[in-house]
Amino acid sequence: MAIRVTIWHEFRHEKKHEHVRAVYPNGMHTVLGEALGKDPNLRVRLTTLDDPQHGLSDEILDNTDVFLWWGHGHHGEVEDERVTELQKRICNGVGLIVLHSGHHSKIFKRMMGTTANLKWRVGTPPDREVLWVTKPGHPITAGIDDHFVLAQEEMYGEYFDVPEPMETILISSFTGGEVFRSGMTWTRGAGKIFYFRPGHETFRTLYDANYQRVVQNAIYWAAPVAGGKVPAAAPHSKAGWIDERLAAAAK
Amino acid sequence: MAIRVTIWHEFRHEKKHEHVRAVYPNGMHTVLGEALGKDPNLRVRLTTLDDPQHGLSDEILDNTDVFLWWGHGHHGEVEDERVTELQKRICNGVGLIVLHSGHHSKIFKRMMGTTANLKWRVGTPPDREVLWVTKPGHPITAGIDDHFVLAQEEMYGEYFDVPEPMETILISSFTGGEVFRSGMTWTRGAGKIFYFRPGHETFRTLYDANYQRVVQNAIYWAAPVAGGKVPAAAPHSKAGWIDERLAAAAK
Amino acid sequence: MAIRVTIWHEFRHEKKHEHVRAVYPNGMHTVLGEALGKDPNLRVRLTTLDDPQHGLSDEILDNTDVFLWWGHGHHGEVEDERVTELQKRICNGVGLIVLHSGHHSKIFKRMMGTTANLKWRVGTPPDREVLWVTKPGHPITAGIDDHFVLAQEEMYGEYFDVPEPMETILISSFTGGEVFRSGMTWTRGAGKIFYFRPGHETFRTLYDANYQRVVQNAIYWAAPVAGGKVPAAAPHSKAGWIDERLAAAAK
Amino acid sequence: MAIRVTIWHEFRHEKKHEHVRAVYPNGMHTVLGEALGKDPNLRVRLTTLDDPQHGLSDEILDNTDVFLWWGHGHHGEVEDERVTELQKRICNGVGLIVLHSGHHSKIFKRMMGTTANLKWRVGTPPDREVLWVTKPGHPITAGIDDHFVLAQEEMYGEYFDVPEPMETILISSFTGGEVFRSGMTWTRGAGKIFYFRPGHETFRTLYDANYQRVVQNAIYWAAPVAGGKVPAAAPHSKAGWIDERLAAAAK
Repeated sequence: MAIRVTIWHEFRHEKKHEHVRAVYPNGMHTVLGEALGKDPNLRVRLTTLDDPQHGLSDEILDNTDVFLWWGHGHHGEVEDERVTELQKRICNGVGLIVLHSGHHSKIFKRMMGTTANLKWRVGTPPDREVLWVTKPGHPITAGIDDHFVLAQEEMYGEYFDVPEPMETILISSFTGGEVFRSGMTWTRGAGKIFYFRPGHETFRTLYDANYQRVVQNAIYWAAPVAGGKVPAAAPHSKAGWIDERLAAAAK
Repeated sequence: MAIRVTIWHEFRHEKKHEHVRAVYPNGMHTVLGEALGKDPNLRVRLTTLDDPQHGLSDEILDNTDVFLWWGHGHHGEVEDERVTELQKRICNGVGLIVLHSGHHSKIFKRMMGTTANLKWRVGTPPDREVLWVTKPGHPITAGIDDHFVLAQEEMYGEYFDVPEPMETILISSFTGGEVFRSGMTWTRGAGKIFYFRPGHETFRTLYDANYQRVVQNAIYWAAPVAGGKVPAAAPHSKAGWIDERLAAAAK
Repeated sequence: MAIRVTIWHEFRHEKKHEHVRAVYPNGMHTVLGEALGKDPNLRVRLTTLDDPQHGLSDEILDNTDVFLWWGHGHHGEVEDERVTELQKRICNGVGLIVLHSGHHSKIFKRMMGTTANLKWRVGTPPDREVLWVTKPGHPITAGIDDHFVLAQEEMYGEYFDVPEPMETILISSFTGGEVFRSGMTWTRGAGKIFYFRPGHETFRTLYDANYQRVVQNAIYWAAPVAGGKVPAAAPHSKAGWIDERLAAAAK
Repeated sequence: MAIRVTIWHEFRHEKKHEHVRAVYPNGMHTVLGEALGKDPNLRVRLTTLDDPQHGLSDEILDNTDVFLWWGHGHHGEVEDERVTELQKRICNGVGLIVLHSGHHSKIFKRMMGTTANLKWRVGTPPDREVLWVTKPGHPITAGIDDHFVLAQEEMYGEYFDVPEPMETILISSFTGGEVFRSGMTWTRGAGKIFYFRPGHETFRTLYDANYQRVVQNAIYWAAPVAGGKVPAAAPHSKAGWIDERLAAAAK
């Protein structure tokens, strides 16, 4: 069965800035959507901040297996109540893939419990980023060599204020000598979360084959497992229930 | 230097219910405060939901190294804004020890990102709880045998909806056959968090020597490390800064 | 493509003890092999301690994606050199599922670095084991309710001396009040490891549908990811290689 | 009470190579020993590969709280039986701090279960290493700024084949653009393990104040906790023991 992927995109920079539009004429989400859409096992839809309910209607939330999230300057405009609903879905198994400046989105900070702060620089000339695989054999880096390079990117530097991850999959170095944990995984409830660093709006990262491969792999990794519902919070029957049930079954 | 410990206590059950007051005439926090107060390295103060700003004034937040938190029926009354301030302190190094029904407090759910739901039962007769040490050599279980028993307690059962911990230190079984991860650690930013399961308001758990020892140990474990401030989120100087600085130093 | 599963079994108790043979007339491995063999995506073979090279010939090692391992009284008879070869395969991506008393096998202790010691009891009457799911949504517990019960089992009790796991998936309680982390995962290099507690040779556990489902799920989870080879240890080319390569590509 | 620190050093390069002796005339261990010896809470002794029993006599093993380990070209000469004894001590609480090329020592590979392979380069000119703190507030980086620089070092590059750590504390970048997880922690049984990357024998790293501070901090972190003994592997008394004991205590 196909994985239902929703690409949530802020989609404001492209409308406001000529130099962003020059790189992503129809928006970053469209580039990613087209790349992922070639995989017949993925059913991709696009949604943006300016859509009804900020692209987070119940209809969308209830029909998504994995969310991709790119936002930057307008995190605060996403309604808290919608974020709460998304958070519930994640705890029940929906996957979340947070891209680049999405680190400061409400939903990511909710899931982490931390500030998600970091250092940054859009250099002149831009930094060159080298992403090193620190977890070979992980499904998210399948088909990736021991490293890959993005010729131009924004720098993100440590300390990145997130909880210790379950797995550190990619670590970047930048021209300036900074480093960053660029691919990390966590679980929250039944949901899987992947943070993937690159993807500044003025660079061609989303067209990069290695970048696209990592995102595609991450979708498969983050997709909910059938039968993964979290038990409801509930009072529990009186002591003795186990043996009563065993006795009943033995009759 | 002494560790500044603040015991935050909801302190409503004792006022409302005779059978709780019978066990804790001056409140649960007072029993814990007296026990911890015998340690000259701890400077203990008590604060409650009915204190100004719900016991979370800036003065208190700025003069606490480790918070203990017991709440139950009135989590919702703690103001969001105060919780946000406490969260900031934790990310900057303040320790948090969450006790029993505090699992549903706003601050704990904030730090976890999950529902913190679980199963529960106050049985008749009450369950007997056995707490097994699953991490010998950890500072929090120093002086504890390979297990200890609480003759009467509320049952909490898995699944407990919290992120995979850094360390699982204690696991309980109950008369009914349920199990629970009763002692777990996490870090968030520079702050350390410990969840400790036992301590229902109608049982004498807080008088128990093993219980008190675990809490005391946890305070030392959770206390901030000197010089542990998290770097500010900030743009970073242009590439080349490292070598310029090295060159300057070499002159 | 089918997953190549090798069930390594000590297969001595069944030959020596009538009361074991009564439960597993053709060996425990045969029961498991038949159950797993119904899945057309698994290609199952059986191998035992008394086979050539202790069932660990290069031919077997090089044609196995996931090993299952049950041993008990004769761990010491497996040659160190064969264990070393198996360890290499695991670090390069082969999965390892260790069953019950396999906790004291050479290969498991090699991968853990610890003693893998624990408490145990074959009670009269035997303990009843309740296995609670502590990680809903994990592929290994897909299709399993929030718990399942084995009416008769050997007790294993904490402390279980293994490294803190990546994930704790199942925790057991026993009639006697002991607890045990019965399902845990680790990774070592590109390889995934799952320990699964139940399966004493005198009880009918291996016929249990929940037991079989967990093992089957674990095989899918532990199977190597295509393209997951660990980079060779090697000296690395001189500084400047990245930019030289980028410049060459830009021409 | 003072922490008993044993610095285990291979001490062969200094004897054989003039250019190493030029940097460390009395051996690398002596430089480290003198620096640490200034701390009155540390009782430091030095031991080397050419000492009786390779510096790992029972007398030494039984009187050490924390081992530091630097080796490089002669790992194979350390007797397996002594390594086994050291491993037992670590599982029972002794701390282990592995320095630089000690990553390929028998004891480190034993504790990890993996190859501990990595990439490396002694460049001409040497790489400049920047070590970034990725865990502010951790006791091991107390007193360290958000990064520190070593002007000349050997490069170590990922993938570093070790199990996912409990905590990643430091990540390095090198002139060549490589990265490395340079400070990582694990626990094994009651023992704590810290790997610290820098310290090639031809550079002045061991004289560096930040380097020395990290090592000193790590010793305090790795020191055994009083009362941290691992329970013996043992059969466990019959079911019912808990309630019998409670009943006896209640009389």
